[in-house]
Amino acid sequence: MIAPIIYADNAVKILNQNRLPDEVIYEEYRTAEEIAVAIKELKVRGAPLIGIAAAYGLALALNYYTGPETLLKEHFTKVKNLLAATRPTAVNLFWALNKMERIFNHNEKLGLNRLKIILIAAANHMLAEDISINQTIGSYGEELLQENCRVLTICNAGALATGGYGTALGVIRAAHEKGKISQVWACETRPVLQGARLTVWELMQDQIPVTLITDGMAGYIMQLGLVDAVIAGADRIAANGDTANKIGTYSLAVLANYHKIPFYIAAPHSTIDTCISRGAEIPIEERSHQEIRQFRGINLTLPEVNVFNPAFDITPHYMIKAVITETGIIEPPFTESIKHHTVLIKSRGGEHEDFA
Amino acid sequence: MIAPIIYADNAVKILNQNRLPDEVIYEEYRTAEEIAVAIKELKVRGAPLIGIAAAYGLALALNYYTGPETLLKEHFTKVKNLLAATRPTAVNLFWALNKMERIFNHNEKLGLNRLKIILIAAANHMLAEDISINQTIGSYGEELLQENCRVLTICNAGALATGGYGTALGVIRAAHEKGKISQVWACETRPVLQGARLTVWELMQDQIPVTLITDGMAGYIMQLGLVDAVIAGADRIAANGDTANKIGTYSLAVLANYHKIPFYIAAPHSTIDTCISRGAEIPIEERSHQEIRQFRGINLTLPEVNVFNPAFDITPHYMIKAVITETGIIEPPFTESIKHHTVLIKSRGGEHEDFA
Repeated sequence: MIAPIIYADNAVKILNQNRLPDEVIYEEYRTAEEIAVAIKELKVRGAPLIGIAAAYGLALALNYYTGPETLLKEHFTKVKNLLAATRPTAVNLFWALNKMERIFNHNEKLGLNRLKIILIAAANHMLAEDISINQTIGSYGEELLQENCRVLTICNAGALATGGYGTALGVIRAAHEKGKISQVWACETRPVLQGARLTVWELMQDQIPVTLITDGMAGYIMQLGLVDAVIAGADRIAANGDTANKIGTYSLAVLANYHKIPFYIAAPHSTIDTCISRGAEIPIEERSHQEIRQFRGINLTLPEVNVFNPAFDITPHYMIKAVITETGIIEPPFTESIKHHTVLIKSRGGEHEDFA
Repeated sequence: MIAPIIYADNAVKILNQNRLPDEVIYEEYRTAEEIAVAIKELKVRGAPLIGIAAAYGLALALNYYTGPETLLKEHFTKVKNLLAATRPTAVNLFWALNKMERIFNHNEKLGLNRLKIILIAAANHMLAEDISINQTIGSYGEELLQENCRVLTICNAGALATGGYGTALGVIRAAHEKGKISQVWACETRPVLQGARLTVWELMQDQIPVTLITDGMAGYIMQLGLVDAVIAGADRIAANGDTANKIGTYSLAVLANYHKIPFYIAAPHSTIDTCISRGAEIPIEERSHQEIRQFRGINLTLPEVNVFNPAFDITPHYMIKAVITETGIIEPPFTESIKHHTVLIKSRGGEHEDFA
C-alpha cells in the first residue's frame, strides 16, 4: 500500500509528489516551516493529506521546542498560523489544525513533555483514522457502481491525496476488489498533471485498468457512451452541498449532467464546512502562472503571456448525485442530509480529542 | 502579417509550427513526399493550410518531374494519393487535392511545361484566395460580436491554420480592428498545445489582449460570466451542420450551451462536406500516444500507460448558433441553409478552375 506520509525516528517522511512518477523519493522533515513549504510547493497535496501533514507540522513544532514553557502556547499559535496560511481552499487543513489546537488546549496543563507525546499520537491517529475512513467510503461508494463499470475521475483523490487508500480512488479500489471496474478514465488534470502523474501511477501499481486522456476529451468519451459514472474528490463542501474541487471538475459535472451520467463526490466528513452556506463563499486559490507556462522548466508558451490559474472550481450541489462519506451516502436535498450526517459523525465520536 | 507558407525560388517554405513560439524557422521543401511528412508531423497544420500545403505538394511533384510525359498522369495520381493519406479528418485536404486534379485534367493536353506553370499558379491562387476568404469571414463574423466582447477559442484557427488572417482568429482580428475585443481566452489545447504555442503567439504579435487558460478552466470562466462568445474553427462540416474540430470543442459547445453563450464556427466553404450527411460519418483521426505521454521528450506520465488520443470530436449542429463563412452567416436550420449557401458559392465562381 502506498504511504504518502510516515512518522518515524522523530521525523516526518513525505513522499515528494512533484517527482512522481519518475522517482519515488521520501524527504525528511523536522520543522513545521519546512512542511509549510512542502505544502505550498505541492510536494504533499490532496485535501485530507494536507490536513495530516499540517497536524504533523504542529507535532514537530512541539517536539523540537526548546524555548521556555511560558511561551509554548504563543509558539504553538504562531506555527499554527504559518501552516494555515499555506493553502486557502481545502478546509481539511483548518479542520486538522483546529483539532490539534483543541487537543493542545485540552492537555496544556500536563506540560511540554507529555504534550509532545500527545500531539505526535494525535497526528498518528489522524493518519490511521483517515485510512480507515477511506476504506469505509470505498465500501459505501462501490455499492453505487454496477458491474463492468467505466469510471471517469479527475486529479488524484487517491492514496496520494490522503493518509492512504483514497477517496474517489478508494471507491474505485473497493469496486475493483469486487471485480466491478472495467475501465478508469484518468483526466490528466492540467496544469499540474496530478491525473497523469499520480492517479495513473497509483492505479497501475494496483493493476486497475486505467486509460489516460487529456481534460478536453472527457466530453467526447461521454458522447461515445464510454463513461458510466464520474467520481471526484473534494477540497471543501459547503452546507448546501456545493463542492470545491480541482479546476476542471465543474466542467465535468456539466458534461456528466448533460449526458445523464451520475456525478459523485467522495470525501471524508472533515471536508464539509458547515460554517459556509454555499460554494460562492469558498476561497479559490490562484496559483503561479508558471504552472501553466512551463513544465519542468520547459516553456509551453510565451513566457510573458497573461495567464489565469485558479486551482479549484465550484460544482453546484444540484449537479451532484451524492456525496460519499464515512457515514454513508449523502443525497439531495443536501442542506438537510448534511445536517443529519453531521449529527451522526458527532454521535460516533468523530470529534474525539482526548489522547492523554 | 504572419505567412505560414510561402512559394519562392521553386520551393515551398513552411513555417515549422512545432518549433513555435520558441523559434521562427522556415523549412524549404522541394518534394511532395517531404510535404506529406510535414503534414503528418504537424509542422504545417490547420484544415485550410493543410489543403494549401498539399496543393503545393502536387505542384512541386510536377515541377520536378523528369519522367516520360506518358507516365505523368500516373505520377500525379500517385502523389495525390500519398498526400491524401496524411490526415483523414480535415476535408479541405481532399477538396484541395481534387481541385488540383481537376485543374490538371482540364489542362493536361497543354503538356508538362505549361502544366507546371498552371499548377504552381493554382496553388498560389489557392493561398491568396484563402487569405481573402478569411478577411471576408472576419467581416461577416465581427458583426455578431458586441462591444467589449470576451471571446473564448480553442486550438489555433488563425493565420497559422490558414493561408493567413485566420478563420476564428480572423473574426477576432476583424472585431479587434473595430475596437470590440476586450479579452480573448485561449484554451491551451492539449495535447499539442496549439492554443498555448500558436494562438497566444499570433494574438500577442497583433497586440490583441489574450489570456491563456488550461482546457479544464473553460467551464469555470463561463460560470463566472467572463465569456460572451465561443468561436472555433472546423476541420469538416457535414451537410446537417455537425462539425468536426479539435478535440475539446464538443465539451466547449456543451458548456457554452449550458451557460447560454453563443457558440460559433468560422470556416471557409471548402470545409463543408455535402457528401456526408451527419457528423457520425466523419472519420476521426487517432494520433500517437506519445503526444499525451511526453512533451518535447520529457515524460508527463508513465511511459507504458494506456492512452486514448482522438485528435478531433464532433459538435452536433443543434449546439452551433451559426457557421461564419465567406458567403455570410449560415444559420439553423443548417441542412437548408448549407444547401442555399452551396448554390451561392458556386454562382460566385468558387469552383473556378481555369488557370491556363
